[in-house]
Amino acid sequence: MIIPTFDDVIAAHARIKPYIHRTPVLTSQYMDDLTGARLFFKCENLQKAGAFKARGASNAVFGLSDEQAIKGVATHSSGNHGLCLSYAAGRRGIPVSVVVPRTAPQAKKEAMRGYGAKVVECEPSTTSREQVFAEVVAQSGADFVHPYNDPRVIAGQATCSLELHEDIGILDAVVAPIGGGGMISGTCLSLAHISPDTKIYAAEPEQADDAYRSFKIGHIIADDAPQTIADGLKVPLKDLTWHFVSKHVSDILLASEQEIIDAMFILWQRMKIVVEPSSAVPLATIIKNKELFAGMRVGIIITGGNLDLKKLPWM
Amino acid sequence: MIIPTFDDVIAAHARIKPYIHRTPVLTSQYMDDLTGARLFFKCENLQKAGAFKARGASNAVFGLSDEQAIKGVATHSSGNHGLCLSYAAGRRGIPVSVVVPRTAPQAKKEAMRGYGAKVVECEPSTTSREQVFAEVVAQSGADFVHPYNDPRVIAGQATCSLELHEDIGILDAVVAPIGGGGMISGTCLSLAHISPDTKIYAAEPEQADDAYRSFKIGHIIADDAPQTIADGLKVPLKDLTWHFVSKHVSDILLASEQEIIDAMFILWQRMKIVVEPSSAVPLATIIKNKELFAGMRVGIIITGGNLDLKKLPWM
Repeated sequence: MIIPTFDDVIAAHARIKPYIHRTPVLTSQYMDDLTGARLFFKCENLQKAGAFKARGASNAVFGLSDEQAIKGVATHSSGNHGLCLSYAAGRRGIPVSVVVPRTAPQAKKEAMRGYGAKVVECEPSTTSREQVFAEVVAQSGADFVHPYNDPRVIAGQATCSLELHEDIGILDAVVAPIGGGGMISGTCLSLAHISPDTKIYAAEPEQADDAYRSFKIGHIIADDAPQTIADGLKVPLKDLTWHFVSKHVSDILLASEQEIIDAMFILWQRMKIVVEPSSAVPLATIIKNKELFAGMRVGIIITGGNLDLKKLPWM
Repeated sequence: MIIPTFDDVIAAHARIKPYIHRTPVLTSQYMDDLTGARLFFKCENLQKAGAFKARGASNAVFGLSDEQAIKGVATHSSGNHGLCLSYAAGRRGIPVSVVVPRTAPQAKKEAMRGYGAKVVECEPSTTSREQVFAEVVAQSGADFVHPYNDPRVIAGQATCSLELHEDIGILDAVVAPIGGGGMISGTCLSLAHISPDTKIYAAEPEQADDAYRSFKIGHIIADDAPQTIADGLKVPLKDLTWHFVSKHVSDILLASEQEIIDAMFILWQRMKIVVEPSSAVPLATIIKNKELFAGMRVGIIITGGNLDLKKLPWM
């Protein structure tokens, strides 16, 4: 296990700057009044390809040697990582293969192809995915960029809270969603170095609370197939993200499906931003735990904005 | 007729800065590829109260003498101006009355009340509105802040393109929606001074094309009750806005209802921002007139993001 360092974060930021947006940090008096805290929303929904994962993916892709880059990159993901790796590989002009269950939304496959990806379909099972992915890598020699359990990816995600700190200064707390733990790990990596007194909270759906239970019991618990509207947060922790979560996270807070939908709606309605359900989990947990954040300066990572606009949960 | 000057814009900016957001300017490779231009989106949907009109309203409200301020402000508007004047008056802590047709959406009336406004209902006719509004002003002595035909309001709106110019530098063109002409007039006022070679285009719905016909014939034409999804753009030009439009605008471009909806959808889908239909008209006209903007650096004013999220035109 290679644990990325803060030097890796600095190198990542320099490497990816030409390929990512410096996303804005938005504030809202309405949200402050609602929560009793002073909230700073780091809007990675406005990031390239609509998600923070453009950072980690770009760091992995642009850190490859020319020799390796020729063979391209590969991953398995039907979500934002697949999209963002396709984006980054497209920018470097190298091959990228993404293994996707054949049942994944057609629109997501089209979007990956739009960035130049070769989309390889597998059956919707772990066995099939691993088998197909192994074939893809064996044939191409592509570099496997894991969605989160990869030091290059975590160093890339860490540039997000680095920018937040540069723009806003010291925060009392930062809250980010937790799925596999890539964004939270990056947040830990940066803040432990530049602002060690800032508390880091992870926000998770009640219906996919494997990280919460892992955190409480002290080792990784991986659920089989959790069901939540926050579909980016269904995946389990892995050794590298567990390292950061277990070492630096103050607590993991939970929100119900309805609380996530309600928070998502007010983010759209009051802040005029399109956010996916996963991005609404931090706000939902802050609304639910007002006493914990009262009077504090709190950063919130809005992780992405990719969803089907024709199927909104309040319609 | 008092014509605001660039000095008024500078004064307005200093006056309103504590009460408005410095809104971000977003870019999108997708939009650039789609249009063949380099587009800079000034996101006033992310402005206080969700619309650029917070600028003009704040300039009017905070420019009042203490003596006048005690009597408050009043306007007639069921749209963003009523909301933004309520916001600004609320920030100064002075009375504000807004005359609204009783048929206007309940949500809009509630939002105005949320900022502290007294909402006075009238019948949905010009006669009733004028009569009720005259009574409100006679009783309160409130200062009438017109939604756009007011030099204080135009100087306030002008701060938007001032910021755009500060952030992005010289643009070949700026495109903004046109209804009554407040934003376009402010754009003319600023750019004629700081960047006189920048062309200014107004974008208007085909189904509410009174400004277009006025521009072509050389005097104001006011339609009675145009019907368009871009409901912020139904009002006619007035003498002060006609002054700026007739003097500084290069052309007025039209878009159909479907073109507006399509442009709105891709703004949500690709840029992850909630914009109201009026805000999508500039992009719709650029997509329709690609040859006019090919290779140019073009500013687009995204005017607002206030709409009913439960009634979207693509659902």
